[in-house]
Amino acid sequence: MSGYFDHIAPVRYEGPDSDNPLAFRHYDPERIVLGKTLKEQLRFAVCYWHNFCWDGADVFGEGTFQRPWHSGADALSLAEQKMDVAFDFFARLGAPFWTFHDYDIAPEGSTIRESRENFARMIDRAAQKQEETGLQLLWGTAKNFGARRYMAGAATNPDPEVFAYAAAQVQQALEATHKLAGANYVLWGGREGYETLLNTDLKREQEQLGRFMQLVVEHKHRIGYKGAILIEPKPQEPTKHQYDYDSATVFGFLQKYGLENEIKVNIEVNHATLAGHTFEHELATASSLGILGSVDANRGDHQNGWDTDQYPNNVEEMTLACYEIIKAGGFTTGGFNFDTKLRRTSIDAEDLFHAHIGGMDTMALAFMKAADLYEQGELQRFVDNRYAGWEQDLGQKILGGKLDLAGLADYAVDKNIAPKPVSSRQEMLENMVNRVIFNRN
Amino acid sequence: MSGYFDHIAPVRYEGPDSDNPLAFRHYDPERIVLGKTLKEQLRFAVCYWHNFCWDGADVFGEGTFQRPWHSGADALSLAEQKMDVAFDFFARLGAPFWTFHDYDIAPEGSTIRESRENFARMIDRAAQKQEETGLQLLWGTAKNFGARRYMAGAATNPDPEVFAYAAAQVQQALEATHKLAGANYVLWGGREGYETLLNTDLKREQEQLGRFMQLVVEHKHRIGYKGAILIEPKPQEPTKHQYDYDSATVFGFLQKYGLENEIKVNIEVNHATLAGHTFEHELATASSLGILGSVDANRGDHQNGWDTDQYPNNVEEMTLACYEIIKAGGFTTGGFNFDTKLRRTSIDAEDLFHAHIGGMDTMALAFMKAADLYEQGELQRFVDNRYAGWEQDLGQKILGGKLDLAGLADYAVDKNIAPKPVSSRQEMLENMVNRVIFNRN
Amino acid sequence: MSGYFDHIAPVRYEGPDSDNPLAFRHYDPERIVLGKTLKEQLRFAVCYWHNFCWDGADVFGEGTFQRPWHSGADALSLAEQKMDVAFDFFARLGAPFWTFHDYDIAPEGSTIRESRENFARMIDRAAQKQEETGLQLLWGTAKNFGARRYMAGAATNPDPEVFAYAAAQVQQALEATHKLAGANYVLWGGREGYETLLNTDLKREQEQLGRFMQLVVEHKHRIGYKGAILIEPKPQEPTKHQYDYDSATVFGFLQKYGLENEIKVNIEVNHATLAGHTFEHELATASSLGILGSVDANRGDHQNGWDTDQYPNNVEEMTLACYEIIKAGGFTTGGFNFDTKLRRTSIDAEDLFHAHIGGMDTMALAFMKAADLYEQGELQRFVDNRYAGWEQDLGQKILGGKLDLAGLADYAVDKNIAPKPVSSRQEMLENMVNRVIFNRN
Amino acid sequence: MSGYFDHIAPVRYEGPDSDNPLAFRHYDPERIVLGKTLKEQLRFAVCYWHNFCWDGADVFGEGTFQRPWHSGADALSLAEQKMDVAFDFFARLGAPFWTFHDYDIAPEGSTIRESRENFARMIDRAAQKQEETGLQLLWGTAKNFGARRYMAGAATNPDPEVFAYAAAQVQQALEATHKLAGANYVLWGGREGYETLLNTDLKREQEQLGRFMQLVVEHKHRIGYKGAILIEPKPQEPTKHQYDYDSATVFGFLQKYGLENEIKVNIEVNHATLAGHTFEHELATASSLGILGSVDANRGDHQNGWDTDQYPNNVEEMTLACYEIIKAGGFTTGGFNFDTKLRRTSIDAEDLFHAHIGGMDTMALAFMKAADLYEQGELQRFVDNRYAGWEQDLGQKILGGKLDLAGLADYAVDKNIAPKPVSSRQEMLENMVNRVIFNRN
Ligand SMILES: [Co+2]
Ligand SMILES: [Co+2]
Ligand SMILES: [Co+2]
Ligand SMILES: [Co+2]
Ligand SMILES: [Co+2]
Ligand SMILES: [Co+2]
Ligand SMILES: [Co+2]
Ligand SMILES: [Co+2]
Repeated sequence: MSGYFDHIAPVRYEGPDSDNPLAFRHYDPERIVLGKTLKEQLRFAVCYWHNFCWDGADVFGEGTFQRPWHSGADALSLAEQKMDVAFDFFARLGAPFWTFHDYDIAPEGSTIRESRENFARMIDRAAQKQEETGLQLLWGTAKNFGARRYMAGAATNPDPEVFAYAAAQVQQALEATHKLAGANYVLWGGREGYETLLNTDLKREQEQLGRFMQLVVEHKHRIGYKGAILIEPKPQEPTKHQYDYDSATVFGFLQKYGLENEIKVNIEVNHATLAGHTFEHELATASSLGILGSVDANRGDHQNGWDTDQYPNNVEEMTLACYEIIKAGGFTTGGFNFDTKLRRTSIDAEDLFHAHIGGMDTMALAFMKAADLYEQGELQRFVDNRYAGWEQDLGQKILGGKLDLAGLADYAVDKNIAPKPVSSRQEMLENMVNRVIFNRN
Repeated sequence: MSGYFDHIAPVRYEGPDSDNPLAFRHYDPERIVLGKTLKEQLRFAVCYWHNFCWDGADVFGEGTFQRPWHSGADALSLAEQKMDVAFDFFARLGAPFWTFHDYDIAPEGSTIRESRENFARMIDRAAQKQEETGLQLLWGTAKNFGARRYMAGAATNPDPEVFAYAAAQVQQALEATHKLAGANYVLWGGREGYETLLNTDLKREQEQLGRFMQLVVEHKHRIGYKGAILIEPKPQEPTKHQYDYDSATVFGFLQKYGLENEIKVNIEVNHATLAGHTFEHELATASSLGILGSVDANRGDHQNGWDTDQYPNNVEEMTLACYEIIKAGGFTTGGFNFDTKLRRTSIDAEDLFHAHIGGMDTMALAFMKAADLYEQGELQRFVDNRYAGWEQDLGQKILGGKLDLAGLADYAVDKNIAPKPVSSRQEMLENMVNRVIFNRN
Repeated sequence: MSGYFDHIAPVRYEGPDSDNPLAFRHYDPERIVLGKTLKEQLRFAVCYWHNFCWDGADVFGEGTFQRPWHSGADALSLAEQKMDVAFDFFARLGAPFWTFHDYDIAPEGSTIRESRENFARMIDRAAQKQEETGLQLLWGTAKNFGARRYMAGAATNPDPEVFAYAAAQVQQALEATHKLAGANYVLWGGREGYETLLNTDLKREQEQLGRFMQLVVEHKHRIGYKGAILIEPKPQEPTKHQYDYDSATVFGFLQKYGLENEIKVNIEVNHATLAGHTFEHELATASSLGILGSVDANRGDHQNGWDTDQYPNNVEEMTLACYEIIKAGGFTTGGFNFDTKLRRTSIDAEDLFHAHIGGMDTMALAFMKAADLYEQGELQRFVDNRYAGWEQDLGQKILGGKLDLAGLADYAVDKNIAPKPVSSRQEMLENMVNRVIFNRN
Repeated sequence: MSGYFDHIAPVRYEGPDSDNPLAFRHYDPERIVLGKTLKEQLRFAVCYWHNFCWDGADVFGEGTFQRPWHSGADALSLAEQKMDVAFDFFARLGAPFWTFHDYDIAPEGSTIRESRENFARMIDRAAQKQEETGLQLLWGTAKNFGARRYMAGAATNPDPEVFAYAAAQVQQALEATHKLAGANYVLWGGREGYETLLNTDLKREQEQLGRFMQLVVEHKHRIGYKGAILIEPKPQEPTKHQYDYDSATVFGFLQKYGLENEIKVNIEVNHATLAGHTFEHELATASSLGILGSVDANRGDHQNGWDTDQYPNNVEEMTLACYEIIKAGGFTTGGFNFDTKLRRTSIDAEDLFHAHIGGMDTMALAFMKAADLYEQGELQRFVDNRYAGWEQDLGQKILGGKLDLAGLADYAVDKNIAPKPVSSRQEMLENMVNRVIFNRN
């Protein structure tokens, strides 16, 4: 079955001058950048769901992909075929990590017991595949939004039985992630939100969600799992309003439930877009709050705000993002996951390769450009200089609590101060960035 | 000078059948709704800036209003004329409250000292005006965004001297608000945000802002001011990204700086829109977090997202908002402020009346409809019933910490649970709301 | 099979004071408004696809509705059951019209021939159902976007064989509509657009589309069909850019291909929203260009721009829309079609009734309010008076071509003109509208 | 006075390795690309208004720039100083063209006569400046939106006297453009639109606007002006809805008034964004309709949709745009105008240079990359191949009118056709573009 990709050779780095569309031109996994290999810095992961489960359907049309493992046999055999194909793809592409939801890899059964048995069986197979291929798990997660039972939420469902069902799924998925040595466990609250306030008890639902997250953290410690727990913020879709709106909202939520040192965020490019932010804003915010965990590198459509999950292809935008990641110290447990999907008209096996190669080259080039910006240091020096006053007497007194409001008013009046505006040089700084991006390969 | 409005009679309530365009048809200040008069419930305030300072200019064109107090004399005389006109307007309209920024009512001088003297003088005049008219102050605030010195922020400015200047302004404005018995003091961070991350130290700026807010709270207690301190969230404009993005973001910020019990929010309809939320979402969120303070009732443009500051005129939208306010217990220190402005083509004196009358009637009608919804209780019963399971055994065990994740998984598996979805009845509930809105006046 | 709705009594008009959630409170079909019954004015239609074909799935989750006619038998039997249920629903609801796509009512076969046979058979059944129930067809259309073959467009496909396939479908669907005495035939170009310019020949695709529309119009005349041909504009979704963007774009297109007197538009509320317009703007534009045909009354989400196809529930917004329709002379062949769908959590049979009842009551109430506005005439008098100068000497000379640019310049300079601005009274006019909406039932 | 820029040396091309922030790194005016110099291909123009008239004020704050020519003398002397400074800037920057509105260069007087005299006087000075510097005029236009008289539109004003005033302005500005040998004359309908339909006669206003445009075209021919007349589409702002929404809308309008061969469009990047389009979409559309005239190269904010008029800095986005311009045959009368403005915090003289240098380098680099894409031909070959069927028998019969709808249906059924979908290769093509952009300088 894994013959599906046999006509495509393993992808190699051939350098920027290669005109082989199925080679990397920028992602050289062994190249040293900022003291580590690119493979170690970027920690690329490929997702299971869009690539191997989705059939190309959209709300206006039927599936277009017609993959052989989508029909024609019993569910478990298809799941096994799918896993063979998936690991074959991961290996040919040369991504070091993968990511999955529980019921991406296993078919749901007709009861919770049967579903758990299916999942347990496929986890064993995945463990074996990991061992055979050397591939690692960036993160696992549970699909608490697809089944009909979750139509009104999982942890935030009006029915506590649904909460229990979701808890059972997360317990098994977290333990499976632990078993597969996953670097992180992700919580994406697909339907943890509301459609209309008319039928919603907002406060109650948030309390349910807070308790759910505490339960997950408690269980993590109980089983000795050392990976990070991540929340993936998204402002809306599928529900009209989602509780994990953006990084700042998640931070407020975590503090409320005493979890700000236990849970970090997995930031997706198009979820930032949907929340009205730039991607680099979300990264900088999470970093400043100490909760930057990992990244889903897929882009949406800036024009209409759709969460199209396209592969990153804008080096200029991604350079600014990588610069924030580098300033934050780079990834520890996190990495760049491609939670991306093909256009539904890209129906061939090789389209999966074109797409990932383009995404990985974009991120690799952007990371190298960002490293140049960082090492060259001009931007940082400009910023440090701009705020220099805060390192001096007045600034230190203010921040150190040596001056109260009345004291500051006295200072201002006594000195009859008239602060002089200084150009913020935005255009010059933008040119500075482009100078780095377009002056070398 | 206050002859400007002499041709317009004080506005009276004449009932829904009146065809007098300069009468209230719904706002009957003495009508008892939910145990108080509408005047006490709604606590309407009129703002000084848009009505009396703005000249009708936009970025593409010159001023259109040509008010007599905008030119033709020295700055202090004009300010005095303006105050006479303003209080005459407030009185003829019959709004019980007003709101202002420091340099709306006083002209800035050529030095900080001169500015403070001007402001002090005008505060005395305002105190006298309040006494004469019985008008009250809903809130005061400082204009920490208009002057060139604030072009790169006030508390978040790279220059601590600007911080000091802003602190001096707020100290005086807070004390003035105290003197005028203002019910609240508002902080609106007009330029507390950034234009580009390239020149910004995000973390440092937020620390500056956190310290600033602590200083204001400390000073409030020092001077014995009993009103509430409010932050007005706005996601963007004038800066591309503002730190006080929305209620959830502000709540996270307040917790970080230990201020969540000291500061509440002043929610503006169009700021909710700009942040991608409905107005009722922002109200429900703030209420659930215990930080709902007051409201700016101006609407933006849903279509293009502009912060047009138009007068509320959609009873259906405002009914849902008022319903959230009523569920939250109604206003204590807060009220409905009209931070609204005329269309720049509405150039006549009477347009100021048409606009406010329409806004006040809209809010009054919406409040009465919401009170009907609340008293009738059908919506609340539906919601209570929907979550009934959480008041029973399983729900209480979950929330009470009696079941851990493994315990929940055992429960689910042992019982082989299969929770049954229940219709969420969104369309029926929407009809229920319209039934109340369109069945009585 | 049609027992599905047996527990729900036919819906009756019970008046605004009824608290029966399954009765009309405003839609009294026999009430005379502006000289016709409401039934004749509103010409309500119910769509087949969302109500009877869609299973409640979204991109993040499986179907939720589990209708008995969705599985469990062969495709043609299911199609027959579905038609029985659908006509039973139409009759119980009391909508006078229905609408369909070819492969809503018939299952696609494994070849084009088999598909056409299935469709022909179901059309016969539909004709019989129409005769039995007295129900009429507002419009028919062909589903030229769902099948995999249409993934890159129908008329605008790079492959002319696909064009031929689409032509065959439209030929049969147009003739079926003729046979069923449909009042209109609609062309909705679901995938007539592009995803990326990189693989698109924009000019060529538009020429293909122009030719396709000419073919349809030619065929209509050949077969003697007297109904109207309508295009349904939509700016985007499913494709990133669609050629029938909005009414003004369609008008330019029709002129280019000589079709501006042959084709009109079917305007959908949320397609207007998506194009950055208000619904009333699209109506007024189409009316001013002489191409206003019919309406799909479903609303989207103003907040995030999603095409959610919800039922109309905002009387204030719909009043402004109905006012434009009334000014345009009302519907001739057109009507209000509900191209609406339930929230996927509204899973019960009665939710279909709640939703349509709410939508029909909203439109009926809005139409009556708009008729009041129209009959009262105050708005129109204001507008006529505002432009009165254009009916006088200078205005008539300009429009009549009696003054050229130089002549106008001479006029301006010789008279040293200084035109005096006049208030545009937007706020007063908004109040005037609310006075009508909230003063009577 | 023109000493204002004396500390800044004329800007030179120094190549990509230069680290001089005040040099061009990519714009080498004499470099030959696609058979012409870059200077001839790009035809850069600098605008007068944002650079020399705007004082840095926004709706929340006062002016920040404090240019010496903004105050301190009588209006005509200031205008003369401003012109000296402007031409000094143009020359130091090395842009070959400039653009202006009538009352950018001359102060409005207290009467129309005085205004026209001022303008005539400044036109003489401009003619002399052009002669001295060799600078050319890309286009002129009239400011028919700034003055209070235009608050409700110019050609679309309810008052025909305002139409006459606007006509007089355009007559003088068109003749001035002719005198200065301007390559184009632009009509930008700043307030040719509406705020609310409640006070608007949409049809009447469009007829007024159609007549106005006919008058301009007639006058152009009468005076023997050979330049192009251009309309600059913009969907909204300052008015809520503008009649010149986008290129497709303008095309429909031009056809209606018989002007489609007389007027072309001037496309602005951020106006495309505001209309929900990509910039390249607007270019491709205008090109396909034969109305592509010129370009305003300023970008807006993709995130919040603001028309920020920032300098282009995204090479990847601009490469796709330049590729469309090259495919359309390049500019004839048109060029790249910078209708751009500084961030209001960029207050120094050198910021004007940083900004324009960055913009010019971005466009030059993008144009060279696009030329590479064009010359390499791979994209075009892919597209040609994709539509090859339309050059063959079936395609030619369809387009040539040899098959009617019934004939196509017969063809499809007789052959029992089953067209085979082909991958559209979007991701591969995106990679192809990046390969060109990032493989050479
Ligand atoms: Co996503
Ligand atoms: Co994701
Ligand atoms: Co605001
Ligand atoms: Co406000
Ligand atoms: Co739609
Ligand atoms: Co529709
Ligand atoms: Co613009
Ligand atoms: Co422009």
